[in-house]
Amino acid sequence: MRESFEAPALRIIGIPGIPEVKAGDNVADLIMENFELYTNDVVVVTQKIVSKAEGRVVALDPNRSAEEQIEELIRSESRRILRQRGSLFITETNFGYVCANAGIDQSNVPEGTVALLPRDPDRSARRIRDRILAKSTKRVGVIISDTFGRTWRQGLTDVALGVAGIAAVVDLRGVPDANGRTLNATQIALADELAGAAELAKPKGGRVGAVVIRGVSSEHFRESSVAEELLRPYGEDLFR
Amino acid sequence: MRESFEAPALRIIGIPGIPEVKAGDNVADLIMENFELYTNDVVVVTQKIVSKAEGRVVALDPNRSAEEQIEELIRSESRRILRQRGSLFITETNFGYVCANAGIDQSNVPEGTVALLPRDPDRSARRIRDRILAKSTKRVGVIISDTFGRTWRQGLTDVALGVAGIAAVVDLRGVPDANGRTLNATQIALADELAGAAELAKPKGGRVGAVVIRGVSSEHFRESSVAEELLRPYGEDLFR
Repeated sequence: MRESFEAPALRIIGIPGIPEVKAGDNVADLIMENFELYTNDVVVVTQKIVSKAEGRVVALDPNRSAEEQIEELIRSESRRILRQRGSLFITETNFGYVCANAGIDQSNVPEGTVALLPRDPDRSARRIRDRILAKSTKRVGVIISDTFGRTWRQGLTDVALGVAGIAAVVDLRGVPDANGRTLNATQIALADELAGAAELAKPKGGRVGAVVIRGVSSEHFRESSVAEELLRPYGEDLFR
Repeated sequence: MRESFEAPALRIIGIPGIPEVKAGDNVADLIMENFELYTNDVVVVTQKIVSKAEGRVVALDPNRSAEEQIEELIRSESRRILRQRGSLFITETNFGYVCANAGIDQSNVPEGTVALLPRDPDRSARRIRDRILAKSTKRVGVIISDTFGRTWRQGLTDVALGVAGIAAVVDLRGVPDANGRTLNATQIALADELAGAAELAKPKGGRVGAVVIRGVSSEHFRESSVAEELLRPYGEDLFR
C-alpha cells in the first residue's frame, strides 16, 4: 500500500480575507497581503474582482429599462451574436470569447450596476503576474477565471478568461501513450482545468475571489495567452 | 499573513501502480490495492480503465477498412448524429452524452482494437462505489471521467461521464451572494470540475488511471447521476 504523500499531488487553496474590491485597487497587492506565494504557484483570480479593480462596473440609468440597457451593453461588448432566446444572448465578445450575455452580470456587484468583462483579460493577467514578480520575486502563473455555460451539458464550470505565465493549452502531439502509440487526446486545455479546479476551493456565495494551486508541473510555466491558444477561431468551429 | 494550512484546501493525488487493466478485472479492487481511501474522498477513474474492465474493447477486422468499421461503431453507439466533418462525428450516444465519435478511440488500447464507452457509465460508477463501501466501509464518491472537446474553445478537458455518491451538479439557486442578492451563476457542474481537476495529477502519456480528490465539502456527497443532472435534454439546447 502506497502512502498518499508519495504520489504526485496538487493542492488547491482558497485565499480568504480579500476585501471588497473597488476601482483602482491593485489585485496583486491584495493577494500578496493575504497569502504567501511561492514560485510555480498558479493564482486563479475571479473575473469579477479584476473587473471591479479595472472600473468595469457600470451604473444603470434607473429611469430606463434595465433589460434594454443590458442588451445595449451586450451588443457593444460583442462583435457577433450567435443565438438569442428571450433575454439570453450567446455572443462572441470583442476579444473573441464565446459566452452568454458577453459575460455581463449582476451578481456580487452593487444594486443598480452590472459588471462587464475586462477589456483584455490576458493583459489583465500579465499585469498581476508582473506585479507579483516585481514585488515578491515569485514567478507565478496567473489565470483570470470566468463562470461559463456549455453546450449540451447542464451546470456551469469556471474556465480561463485570461492567462499569464502558465500554459493555456498543453500540446501532447507526438507524445506516445502507454502502448507506444501516439496519443489521440493531444491538446489539453490546462488553464480551463485549473480554473475549474480553483472553483472547488470557493465556498458557495462567499467572497473567496482568489485561489492558489500548488504542485503544477514546472514544465507548464511559460508565456501564454487565452486569446491565442484557447479561443477557437470563427471558421474552425462546427457550432457557431 | 495567513498561513496556507488555515485556508480551505483540497488535495489532488494521482494513484500510481494500477496495472494494465483486462476484461473482468475489478476496478474497485485495483484502486484499493494501490491506495488507502477515506470516507468523503472522490475517486476519479478514467473511462478507458472502466471500458477495458467491462470488456468494451473491440477488435477490428484487419481485412476491412478500419475507418469504415469505426464509423459503423460510432453509428451503433449513437442515437443521433449532430455534425460530421471528414472522419469526425459529433453524436449523441445511446445514453445521451454529446461528444466526438461516440467516445470511441484508439489510444491506450492494443493495436487493431478500439475502446467503446461503458454502456451505462452511471451504473459503472455505482458498482465501483458499492464495492469500495462493501470491502472497506469507506463511503467515497466515484466519477468516471472522459476526455472531452468543447465548442468554441481549443483543447480538451476531462468531464464526468458517470458518477456515484457525489453531486453531479450543485444547485445554488436561492443562495445569496456577498451583497445579499441572489446568485446568478446558480448551478455548478461539480462533477465536471472534479474530473478536470483530476486530470492535473496525471503525467502525460502515463498510466495514472485513477486520481483521488480529498477535501471536497461533505455536503456534496449524495446520490446523483450524470444522465439526470449533467446531460442537457435535446430540446433545451441552443446548439444541437
